[in-house]
Amino acid sequence: MEKRMDNIDAERSAGAKAKEDAKQQRLKAREEQERQKQLLLETTVSDLDSKSFGYLLPTVTNLPERKWVDIKDVDSAEGQVVWLRGRINDVRGKGTMAFIIVRQQHESLQCIVDSRQEMVSKDMVKWSASLSMESIVDILGKVVRPEVPVSSTTAKCELQVHKIICISKANPTMPFLIRDANNTDDEEACKNPGVIKVNQDTRLDNRPLDLRATLNLAIFRIQSEICQQFRNFLLKREFIEIHSPKLLGGTSEGGCNVFKLKYFDNDACLAQSPQLYKQLAVVGDFRRVFEIGPVFRAENSNTHRHLCEFVGLDMEMEIRDSYMEVVDLIDEMLKSIFHGINTECKTQLEILQKLQPSIEPFKWLEQTPRIRFTEAVEMLRRTELADTIPDDITSYDFSTEQEKRLGRLVREKYNTDYYIVYEYPLNARPFYTMPVERDGMMFTHSYDFFMRGEEILSGAQRIHNPDLLLKRAKECGIDPKTISCYIEAFKMGASPHAGCGIGLERVEMLFLGTGNIRRTSLFPRDPRRLTP
Amino acid sequence: MEKRMDNIDAERSAGAKAKEDAKQQRLKAREEQERQKQLLLETTVSDLDSKSFGYLLPTVTNLPERKWVDIKDVDSAEGQVVWLRGRINDVRGKGTMAFIIVRQQHESLQCIVDSRQEMVSKDMVKWSASLSMESIVDILGKVVRPEVPVSSTTAKCELQVHKIICISKANPTMPFLIRDANNTDDEEACKNPGVIKVNQDTRLDNRPLDLRATLNLAIFRIQSEICQQFRNFLLKREFIEIHSPKLLGGTSEGGCNVFKLKYFDNDACLAQSPQLYKQLAVVGDFRRVFEIGPVFRAENSNTHRHLCEFVGLDMEMEIRDSYMEVVDLIDEMLKSIFHGINTECKTQLEILQKLQPSIEPFKWLEQTPRIRFTEAVEMLRRTELADTIPDDITSYDFSTEQEKRLGRLVREKYNTDYYIVYEYPLNARPFYTMPVERDGMMFTHSYDFFMRGEEILSGAQRIHNPDLLLKRAKECGIDPKTISCYIEAFKMGASPHAGCGIGLERVEMLFLGTGNIRRTSLFPRDPRRLTP
Repeated sequence: MEKRMDNIDAERSAGAKAKEDAKQQRLKAREEQERQKQLLLETTVSDLDSKSFGYLLPTVTNLPERKWVDIKDVDSAEGQVVWLRGRINDVRGKGTMAFIIVRQQHESLQCIVDSRQEMVSKDMVKWSASLSMESIVDILGKVVRPEVPVSSTTAKCELQVHKIICISKANPTMPFLIRDANNTDDEEACKNPGVIKVNQDTRLDNRPLDLRATLNLAIFRIQSEICQQFRNFLLKREFIEIHSPKLLGGTSEGGCNVFKLKYFDNDACLAQSPQLYKQLAVVGDFRRVFEIGPVFRAENSNTHRHLCEFVGLDMEMEIRDSYMEVVDLIDEMLKSIFHGINTECKTQLEILQKLQPSIEPFKWLEQTPRIRFTEAVEMLRRTELADTIPDDITSYDFSTEQEKRLGRLVREKYNTDYYIVYEYPLNARPFYTMPVERDGMMFTHSYDFFMRGEEILSGAQRIHNPDLLLKRAKECGIDPKTISCYIEAFKMGASPHAGCGIGLERVEMLFLGTGNIRRTSLFPRDPRRLTP
Repeated sequence: MEKRMDNIDAERSAGAKAKEDAKQQRLKAREEQERQKQLLLETTVSDLDSKSFGYLLPTVTNLPERKWVDIKDVDSAEGQVVWLRGRINDVRGKGTMAFIIVRQQHESLQCIVDSRQEMVSKDMVKWSASLSMESIVDILGKVVRPEVPVSSTTAKCELQVHKIICISKANPTMPFLIRDANNTDDEEACKNPGVIKVNQDTRLDNRPLDLRATLNLAIFRIQSEICQQFRNFLLKREFIEIHSPKLLGGTSEGGCNVFKLKYFDNDACLAQSPQLYKQLAVVGDFRRVFEIGPVFRAENSNTHRHLCEFVGLDMEMEIRDSYMEVVDLIDEMLKSIFHGINTECKTQLEILQKLQPSIEPFKWLEQTPRIRFTEAVEMLRRTELADTIPDDITSYDFSTEQEKRLGRLVREKYNTDYYIVYEYPLNARPFYTMPVERDGMMFTHSYDFFMRGEEILSGAQRIHNPDLLLKRAKECGIDPKTISCYIEAFKMGASPHAGCGIGLERVEMLFLGTGNIRRTSLFPRDPRRLTP
């Protein structure tokens, strides 16, 4: 019995001990969990010398001068110990090691946190593996060339991490992943149902995140280049850059489709185009001017190619004998822009080609086809759209569908995505457009330029004679009082002049074939979107 | 008697004849007057071959291709017969000849219509002498070098006129003459009471005419150059150009001083600065961005240096270790702009120097003085303005008067018109400015740049940590809800960054010393002016 009791006691005792042990273990585990949690969440760093890893306190703003390298240069720093700042693009822990892919724009680099290394603790590995995607880290490490090169990164070398300091912690849950945002080819996505696509509104609602996508960085690098090409071409030809006011008194030329506001006690509106002021600059003897600036249109159009605020590339110049001088110059300019993108943005175009393989590169010719309006009408009359064109074309302009069709006709005939249509009917253009008679019908010294069947540029010679301008205004039912300041300007003497306005986002959309103008607008504004 | 009668009759008859003759003469004179009037007013030309002089009919828009020369090149075309287009700057008839000074921007040329020449009629001389100032003429003539060079024109040669066609007739009465508009030196005008000055409002009311003044053409040529210098400096350093929206949802950051408008059914306002969007572009991994665009301020300030719409030169960039990286870059940039104006706009600066001899050229040093805010305070405390500075400077910023005084102090001490003040007190800067503690007081990583004692640039490192940003917003009494989109952006991970905004018109006004910002704004907008 005693024995049994003993046994029982012993058993009891053993049971209690086991329980006690388990409890202890649970406590220890909980403690460890707490420590880990603490480690992952709150490991902070107040200076870069004392700790190897952690979140930098936001109050620390002056840091020691460090030796930095960018990923694009990392391969040539082999063997050196350097600092590198980048975004966490991907991270995974694997036993005693953490693998971090760090991103700088479209460049990427693998960083290895390896606890078998002297200065790396197991805690440092765990902490590193816990870093949230899109966080920004400063990493001190040695550049080494692995035996088997890393295939998934742009850098061939990798970094053996000595220190890793997070200087900006991103939320662990993001609206979408950059890798998914990079899936932008619609045809590819249709073919492969496994591809995750990010909806356009989700992108635009989170535009600062969306902009990090490789495709978007490429798009806006190219956009910057288009502006430089536009300017450099014109500056070389004695144009000067102007900045016209966007706040106008009363209501703008058109009257409708303007955003109205109060300017102190006066009525004002936002400029629908710098047209008037470009002309006044010419009247003011600037001779040749250009401007890149915002243009505002209160149009309730929800299409793939309309925005309520876009960037206008505008120019205006004196002409001598014929408005074809302007057509020649604009044509040369656009071709020089296309050429400039191809030579200055090779990397970006390769990225786009890779991400959007189904989009055909933009085609143009040395000799741009120039099609008289009446000729374009005849071309369309020979298609299935013949019935949609009226017999009397005195007040006629093409519909979007007809323009698209014309684009295909020109592509078939000339093998180009880029061409010019000129001499539109008088009543299809604004009152200030220079009229011209041909075969007993009234046309204008006007032109539209097209890319892939869509208009990207509209322009004309303007009437510089105040009497003719007044007559045309009256014929168009415009109250002369509302445009008296405009007409008065030409009574001070004005040279013949012509110009054009180009939509920056539209040119880029059509050159790249991205299909929606919201993709080429940094923070698009349409009737439904005013944020962010 | 008879004799007498005869005599009387004869006398009568002689008297009647004389009367008749006089009547005939009067009739003839009237006819001639009519003919002259007709000649001066209505001599029209419908093509360039049939007549030697006259007003070109406005319906004639396509002209034959001609051989043109500009005044700047005319001296090298000696002996040639060329076409030249320009404005009538001055005209006088003298017997059988008319002397016309034709102007192209700041260039001028004498043209002689001489009826002793075979193809020139007396009518052509009369008609030429009747041309109104500022009209635009096409002149065909032979370039000849006179024995006594013309001293009043820029061209050394003159033109023997064969044909003169007016293509745009200016009103005979103009609001002012360009020659008077060129009198812009205030001190000169005070010394010499004979100088006619054109009042600033008259100029601005007739801005297209005013712009033709030599001084204004120079100002806007230089303005164009400033923009190129700004961009080229940044583009070389891997910045990209962005275009941020000017239409914002709700009310802008500040809340007050914004222009409000309706955006379809929503409330919107005009951007007071591209600040937010520059930062979002950095959050979007653009790394370094700049923008040149309009900035809107609904401030009721009627001073020499405030506008309600001006052109902002904005930049923003990631920083690594210290905000002094940005200060260094901006400083280099401004010096490169100053240098660029001096090298690229020599002609314009000479014109300005000649027209405004009393204005001292702008001075700067290779090594820009950088003055800590507290040091600037000490400098001012040693002046007569000592009493105007509070003991506690935690919420303090300089007044315009103090800034001007500091400018003179710096000029005396360093012999420069250009310097930097940095590390302003925390409460003198916006909530998003990065705070820093020094000697137990709170300051900021901020800086203002000055030219001739006036601020031209303001900037700072921005808070990139969302928690700190929220804390600062609350401390500044800002409702976090109104800036939630801004704070959210930094939860997606953000690098430390800093930037600045520069007023284009202000930089130019102070570089050139023109004294009023309206002179460096193409079409200025202030609380009292919204037109033209």
